[in-house]
Amino acid sequence: GCTEAAAPGKPPLIFRQLLDLESSTYTYILADAYTRDAIVIDPVDTMAERDAEIITEMGLNLLFALNTHVHADHVNGASKLRALFPQMRSVISRASGAQADVAVAPGDSVEFAGRSVVVRATPGHTDGCCSFVLDDRSMVFTGDALLIRGCGRTDFQQGNSKSLYESVHTQLFTLPNDTIVYPAHDYKGRGNSTIGEERMFNPRLTKDIEEFQRIMAGLNLAYPKRIDAAVPANMKCGLYD
Amino acid sequence: GCTEAAAPGKPPLIFRQLLDLESSTYTYILADAYTRDAIVIDPVDTMAERDAEIITEMGLNLLFALNTHVHADHVNGASKLRALFPQMRSVISRASGAQADVAVAPGDSVEFAGRSVVVRATPGHTDGCCSFVLDDRSMVFTGDALLIRGCGRTDFQQGNSKSLYESVHTQLFTLPNDTIVYPAHDYKGRGNSTIGEERMFNPRLTKDIEEFQRIMAGLNLAYPKRIDAAVPANMKCGLYD
Ligand SMILES: [Fe+2]
Ligand SMILES: [Fe+2]
Repeated sequence: GCTEAAAPGKPPLIFRQLLDLESSTYTYILADAYTRDAIVIDPVDTMAERDAEIITEMGLNLLFALNTHVHADHVNGASKLRALFPQMRSVISRASGAQADVAVAPGDSVEFAGRSVVVRATPGHTDGCCSFVLDDRSMVFTGDALLIRGCGRTDFQQGNSKSLYESVHTQLFTLPNDTIVYPAHDYKGRGNSTIGEERMFNPRLTKDIEEFQRIMAGLNLAYPKRIDAAVPANMKCGLYD
Repeated sequence: GCTEAAAPGKPPLIFRQLLDLESSTYTYILADAYTRDAIVIDPVDTMAERDAEIITEMGLNLLFALNTHVHADHVNGASKLRALFPQMRSVISRASGAQADVAVAPGDSVEFAGRSVVVRATPGHTDGCCSFVLDDRSMVFTGDALLIRGCGRTDFQQGNSKSLYESVHTQLFTLPNDTIVYPAHDYKGRGNSTIGEERMFNPRLTKDIEEFQRIMAGLNLAYPKRIDAAVPANMKCGLYD
């Protein structure tokens, strides 16, 4: 990821993209470069120490840990980070039904000093999936809704392929073509894409809704490795006992 | 990585950071967004298909494959990419002694339409290691010379810790503090750092030269997995038979 981005009238952004090599999960750190107020998106429990080291060294004041969804593929790291940054509050969509310090709804914004991200509801992979759009629309954090040349699976938990298709087409593909897409995962080491590229080249979501539903129904994916551990823990947004 | 960066008076840059999950090697694609002329830095042989797909889909005209050094830790991908992009030319430093289409020296620039990178000699990990500085000095590609909170090993091949220390201090730490550092590897999934951060927090290179040499002499690292295959292949810059 790149480190500083300028938006007209807004403080420069400190930005970091981090990868958990085991689960291929991306975690993002965003901060207002002047005040150092910061948020983290989709932290991973096993990587809390790495993330905390970066946050501490850079002198960031971690306000919120946002989760795009209740992850089936990893236990989130909000709880571990909270132990290190007691003022931090966890954030998840109200629609997820998960416990967190702050429950957000579509249109809500999460502010960190002069910068913010806005919540969009992007259900389909799960009921409570949401995406976070940076204030200047230069970046969108899509969780497991829109992946690079792919999308999250819709065949377990609350998965619904019709809902996913509508989420992506109405909430994400309506963003500017040059909005950078930062997903929750990529299994080929590709760090990002853009809305324009996914509108042109996403092999599933460029299809019509009927074909998309057929594709998603025919994937025959394996049961994810950590789902039994991860889902109960994440329904508490990392507050597992 | 981020996708578009604006530099005053220069065409917007298309930028991609890609990771080979097996060897934790980063590959970078840079292109002039107007003409689509492009370069790739440190391609990995096993990832050529992934890289080619991105280059092709984005409509890029791949001019050069640059190598920061003769890699001990992976076989580079210039040869595989050349088969797919016949007009592409491989680039490596003259000091490396390796075969390539273009041998560059410190101060040379590699141009892709309205953008360019400039070669800096950063020996120490190997004799021929170099770094590439983007025209506006917003990014530097440091290979195995400067890593995030680390540096390349200096205990085999042509490794020389004194030389590495001098390279980093005279050629890299003299860049602006906000120049983004993009290394050849990171084993913790951290995508980038900045010159300012490494000047403050690099646990090795913030030491004086004597202590640095003691640290490097005492690392007792394991012999890299792919060195026997990689070094002979890379001495030909991927033109292995
Ligand atoms: Fe996930
Ligand atoms: Fe390397």
